Amino acid sequence: MNFCVKCGKKLVVRVPDGDDRNRYVCGACGTVHYSNPKMVVGAIPEYEDRILLCRRAIEPRWGLWTLPAGFMENEESVEEGAKRETLEEAGAELNGLSPFAMFSLPFVSQVYLMFRARLLTPHFAAGHESLDVKLVSEAEIPWDEIAFPVIEETLRLFLADRKKGAFGFHSGIINRRI
Amino acid sequence: MNFCVKCGKKLVVRVPDGDDRNRYVCGACGTVHYSNPKMVVGAIPEYEDRILLCRRAIEPRWGLWTLPAGFMENEESVEEGAKRETLEEAGAELNGLSPFAMFSLPFVSQVYLMFRARLLTPHFAAGHESLDVKLVSEAEIPWDEIAFPVIEETLRLFLADRKKGAFGFHSGIINRRI
Repeated sequence: MNFCVKCGKKLVVRVPDGDDRNRYVCGACGTVHYSNPKMVVGAIPEYEDRILLCRRAIEPRWGLWTLPAGFMENEESVEEGAKRETLEEAGAELNGLSPFAMFSLPFVSQVYLMFRARLLTPHFAAGHESLDVKLVSEAEIPWDEIAFPVIEETLRLFLADRKKGAFGFHSGIINRRI
Repeated sequence: MNFCVKCGKKLVVRVPDGDDRNRYVCGACGTVHYSNPKMVVGAIPEYEDRILLCRRAIEPRWGLWTLPAGFMENEESVEEGAKRETLEEAGAELNGLSPFAMFSLPFVSQVYLMFRARLLTPHFAAGHESLDVKLVSEAEIPWDEIAFPVIEETLRLFLADRKKGAFGFHSGIINRRI
């Protein structure tokens, strides 16, 4: 960050009055430019006992498998965001969303929020961010080709809870990118 | 938003390549300025059967009562954020945090995440954003002077679950500011 979004003048790094940490502050008009963590919302879409996975058509981790998830947008709810991302990436409509897991990724200032959800029909199609989309059984999950640790951890917790027949809500921290 | 934070030139509103919604894009260097929902993290601090409330020393809703909560900062986890806000606003140390409720506030593009938590000792003190901090029993909660609907809803869900003797994880949408 170099310039003020409001007046275009130079930013300086300093602690604003009444604050306790460095921010980017405009040297001319005083506007404080806050930066906060971003939320990633996504789902574990189930059809019968199979899970919907997407193969990434974008970097990072091109060609690897993931669950539908992406950055939450302004003016939507977390559930609407998870539904939108699943429709965009996998062409699939979710139903019966239930919060399942939340992960803080402090090294990239992100928070993942993953929902359990049902597919009403086995209809899906790769969106422009996906090379392929498929329903997989537990035995078919490509563990060596999962794109991110947060997705692997979500799948492991989900399968463990499903085996127990009791789903909890999980909160955890992920400290590595790959 | 008027000017590019990177190069200081004028921003235009357009749909970037590969995107599907309007963003602020620099007409000179092409930098896309994304805006996403912010997370507010907070707690329902309990000591024995009483709850810690803070009386706001800042606008909006100066003088009204709230739970300790505030904007999550970069490079922290959701739990660390809730602990930090409680220390800043109420001078109190939390223990045993457990995710309790999540609320989407699409009209202000915020997501609240509230934890149940214990105070190890009944020590607290108003921070500079609080006029007063106190432990209240259920009967003493000043329902007519609660600052925000999201805090009122959090307290009601918490008390209902406590009465049942079983705490769930709740997700909801709040559509009004006051």
